[in-house]
Amino acid sequence: MELGLVGLGKMGGNMRQRIRNAGHTVVGFDHNQDISDAKDLADMVGKLTASDQPKVVWVMVPVQAIDPVITELADLLSPGDIVIDGGNSRWTDDTRRAAQLAEKDIKFVDCGVSGGVWGLENGYALMCGGENDVVATLMPIFEALKPEGDFGFVHAGKVGAGHFSKMVHNGIEYAIMQAYAEGFELLEAADIVDNVPETFESWREGTVIRSWLLDLMVNALKEDTHLDKIRGYAEDSGEGRWTVEAAIDHAVPVPAIAASLFARFASRQDDSPAMKAIAAMRNQFGGHAVKGAEDPSYATPPIKH
Amino acid sequence: MELGLVGLGKMGGNMRQRIRNAGHTVVGFDHNQDISDAKDLADMVGKLTASDQPKVVWVMVPVQAIDPVITELADLLSPGDIVIDGGNSRWTDDTRRAAQLAEKDIKFVDCGVSGGVWGLENGYALMCGGENDVVATLMPIFEALKPEGDFGFVHAGKVGAGHFSKMVHNGIEYAIMQAYAEGFELLEAADIVDNVPETFESWREGTVIRSWLLDLMVNALKEDTHLDKIRGYAEDSGEGRWTVEAAIDHAVPVPAIAASLFARFASRQDDSPAMKAIAAMRNQFGGHAVKGAEDPSYATPPIKH
Amino acid sequence: MELGLVGLGKMGGNMRQRIRNAGHTVVGFDHNQDISDAKDLADMVGKLTASDQPKVVWVMVPVQAIDPVITELADLLSPGDIVIDGGNSRWTDDTRRAAQLAEKDIKFVDCGVSGGVWGLENGYALMCGGENDVVATLMPIFEALKPEGDFGFVHAGKVGAGHFSKMVHNGIEYAIMQAYAEGFELLEAADIVDNVPETFESWREGTVIRSWLLDLMVNALKEDTHLDKIRGYAEDSGEGRWTVEAAIDHAVPVPAIAASLFARFASRQDDSPAMKAIAAMRNQFGGHAVKGAEDPSYATPPIKH
Amino acid sequence: MELGLVGLGKMGGNMRQRIRNAGHTVVGFDHNQDISDAKDLADMVGKLTASDQPKVVWVMVPVQAIDPVITELADLLSPGDIVIDGGNSRWTDDTRRAAQLAEKDIKFVDCGVSGGVWGLENGYALMCGGENDVVATLMPIFEALKPEGDFGFVHAGKVGAGHFSKMVHNGIEYAIMQAYAEGFELLEAADIVDNVPETFESWREGTVIRSWLLDLMVNALKEDTHLDKIRGYAEDSGEGRWTVEAAIDHAVPVPAIAASLFARFASRQDDSPAMKAIAAMRNQFGGHAVKGAEDPSYATPPIKH
Repeated sequence: MELGLVGLGKMGGNMRQRIRNAGHTVVGFDHNQDISDAKDLADMVGKLTASDQPKVVWVMVPVQAIDPVITELADLLSPGDIVIDGGNSRWTDDTRRAAQLAEKDIKFVDCGVSGGVWGLENGYALMCGGENDVVATLMPIFEALKPEGDFGFVHAGKVGAGHFSKMVHNGIEYAIMQAYAEGFELLEAADIVDNVPETFESWREGTVIRSWLLDLMVNALKEDTHLDKIRGYAEDSGEGRWTVEAAIDHAVPVPAIAASLFARFASRQDDSPAMKAIAAMRNQFGGHAVKGAEDPSYATPPIKH
Repeated sequence: MELGLVGLGKMGGNMRQRIRNAGHTVVGFDHNQDISDAKDLADMVGKLTASDQPKVVWVMVPVQAIDPVITELADLLSPGDIVIDGGNSRWTDDTRRAAQLAEKDIKFVDCGVSGGVWGLENGYALMCGGENDVVATLMPIFEALKPEGDFGFVHAGKVGAGHFSKMVHNGIEYAIMQAYAEGFELLEAADIVDNVPETFESWREGTVIRSWLLDLMVNALKEDTHLDKIRGYAEDSGEGRWTVEAAIDHAVPVPAIAASLFARFASRQDDSPAMKAIAAMRNQFGGHAVKGAEDPSYATPPIKH
Repeated sequence: MELGLVGLGKMGGNMRQRIRNAGHTVVGFDHNQDISDAKDLADMVGKLTASDQPKVVWVMVPVQAIDPVITELADLLSPGDIVIDGGNSRWTDDTRRAAQLAEKDIKFVDCGVSGGVWGLENGYALMCGGENDVVATLMPIFEALKPEGDFGFVHAGKVGAGHFSKMVHNGIEYAIMQAYAEGFELLEAADIVDNVPETFESWREGTVIRSWLLDLMVNALKEDTHLDKIRGYAEDSGEGRWTVEAAIDHAVPVPAIAASLFARFASRQDDSPAMKAIAAMRNQFGGHAVKGAEDPSYATPPIKH
Repeated sequence: MELGLVGLGKMGGNMRQRIRNAGHTVVGFDHNQDISDAKDLADMVGKLTASDQPKVVWVMVPVQAIDPVITELADLLSPGDIVIDGGNSRWTDDTRRAAQLAEKDIKFVDCGVSGGVWGLENGYALMCGGENDVVATLMPIFEALKPEGDFGFVHAGKVGAGHFSKMVHNGIEYAIMQAYAEGFELLEAADIVDNVPETFESWREGTVIRSWLLDLMVNALKEDTHLDKIRGYAEDSGEGRWTVEAAIDHAVPVPAIAASLFARFASRQDDSPAMKAIAAMRNQFGGHAVKGAEDPSYATPPIKH
């Protein structure tokens, strides 16, 4: 099968390789001409010449670039052609983009992609949304990208269902990571367990909490026993936020996922305005000393009881 | 009425004054002889000479000093005398102390005291636990300490009920403070409201959220509009912790109180071990950059959608 | 001053009364002709005849009715006239509505209103957003509505700032209510405090947690000691949700407010899908019995330790 | 090697089998004589006759039975013999029990055991605490019980470290389960994804959230697509509670684990006292209708925005 692939960064570049490894033809385009197979989008589309299939273009670009690319593709493609958005789009944008392309009778499929830097070797988990026959047309590409074995691909529903599934996947991921993180901090703080990395490693078999994230956590602890070398500073991508917002829209309580998101927000603050307010109120009612903005902070000893 | 009062610090000293203002006799003892009325506990007890009442001693000392004082008082007092623990004791310690004193037929009352630096002027809210007749004996002292008006005193139940009530009071306080603090941070962050202190001040009448803590927050904001001068560093006393633990004992969900407690814990950390773990796992699976332990942190711009 | 007032329900009706009590002229319109002063919006606008002021119309209708009313007013009013939206609008809608009216040079002010059934007597807290001169024109109306005294009104900023402030106010309200609610549940569960209503009542003076909401809680407990007569079922309005969403937009951690919102969501579920999943997983790994969908539930005894 | 094993229930019975499968001698005792190898503890100890090792007794009984068994064993065993507590003990009890046995120079090892009904086949993950030489003596038994491969066993530290590690493991488990549960509820609520079980199943490969608990969740969804057959009712064992309490002792924020615990508490309530309080306050200030205790509840439609 033949595929145009827009965006050859960390994800797209490896995906091109994995699809080619499966025997398909990929014409990739990237603004970085050193890695691009085409000089622009029109050139890329022009190089899609297979006569036995519609032109298929997979868009794998940063969120802010998706709309411009899709708008340009709408001009370059023909009725019956297919655009796949594999980026980290919000599911609510999928419907809009599908409608935009549908005006020219171009088909749209949204596809959430998981796998990170491990995807080239292990395959990418794919969650897609779209019409049945369009998804069917794309199956050779999906088969090339997904992991071997029975899992790693789902046609989750209509347009939007792919990114929605991926969003929920990431929301779950946030809370699972928070779970291990809280356990790590408690083990480190308690001074009862001598060897925290070995304890995490022992959990890799026979326990209820064995998982791929646990394996990664063990890798990290082997490199840096107490994680002394890195800061407790965690970015968040849109999916965690959108998960909480979608939950609010549907009146679904998501306390663990929200807690995980808020912990990341807090990790990026040099000082917490909310905690300034707490300190200020305590000072007002109790005469509790406040710390000046320039005071060094220090850990408080635990209260024993 | 005549009262021995052990501990003349920020709380005890003002309480002595307020009780005296009501016309009662107070013999205070403190290790600081400059403010003490007696040279030691024995001397204080010796100076309690009223013949128409049992000797009554109010203990108002830091948590770690309570047991030694009570043990000494057990030797100095006689059957029928009364000890009041007005400190920040855990309610579970009250029963034990009551039993210790009961061996000598000395009575025990626990009394949670709220009021802070405002108590001398406005009165102290009192929540006490103990036997009906013992509490009845103490009412003149309680009347002297409590605020004027109909409220501010409760005989909550048997021994322990006073400190339990005070503990729950403080747990509620944690979450109310957190509520204002979160609202403050959001108003500051959003850059929509021009004058956050005025907004808080406007809430003092007519709103659902008017309260004494709001008044204090307004005071603090008048002194320091953006709370620039103080750090977001908040201590916690035992009561917030005990509230969550008591809730766990009784299978009561307390998500807001627990969140408030955890926010204080986090405020005292220079770096979060849990967030180190999050950063480490993200780096492992996605190649996301981590920040070195020495990197300056910076605020992340909000994701727009 | 002269005012058109659209919507004479529980809020609007009382507001008409309070504004009239202050000596102003109000022409009210409501679909319920029994209480309406005009037969339709056009009739209402026609009855605004003061020559020394622009026509001023306060819209106090349910959220879904605001856009139709504003669209109709845009046709009925003239350049320089003023529309106030006093409803529970999302602040993000204010900008859009202001722009719609600005096309005809009609001015727009958004005003969050707090006070509920107590507003007629005590006054309404008002948080408004808009241009300085427009707000200045409206001050006589705001003065009539707001509580006596120094507080209860703020011009928070540009258009949108009023509803944003009111939204944050409500978010804070959610968490304060949750604070008292958690404390109540713990006191009820612990079986240590004999008289929970008296304990709450005692907190009305001298404590850190005295507030208007506490007063209301005491009223409720006096009517129904254990709240046996009502279900633990709590609606939420949009403001709580929007507060969490605004916090997410600005990367502000709001764990207590979010917990309060989620607790309300959960209170409305007959059965929790999430907890079905927990039960299912426990059954899978541990052979823990699950309860059939039709089994009666029962409270679990606390684990003692 | 030769081992006495007290308690032959769901866990102990399978453990006896797995240890025997490895070629060791196990004398099991259970009050159920049908499955017991000895008629009482004394009989069991009498049957431990190997001359080349100390007598070793593994206690695998419910929490409330551990102290009586250990007290009886203290009389039956001799200096140098070893007792292992494999039950769900709180780590703080380990030190006490070790001291009790140390009076007779009997050694003590605590061992957290994970594996549930899958342990017989896959092996049990073991986290133990104790002196190095005592643990070394027990390694043949640990090797027999643990899973094949490099993981599944850790000597975490001194006495108590085993149960502490196991406790943290379970705390992590709570939050991971909650993560999947929240994701499940959101997918079910959103009505965007057609096939939730297939979506979960697809996540088993290539995703960041693949894990053994995910596998179990998939199993459960295959049996009961919407989990209609079971109630959202989740027990909790002591470990989750102790994890939060240990975190509080060490001032470690554990918002996700605590949220998971509270969600289980709430799942067991027929009605929420806290939410009664919320409903009561809303009624007081806003005239919001409350639902009578006998009213049927119903799901509220989501607010669209």
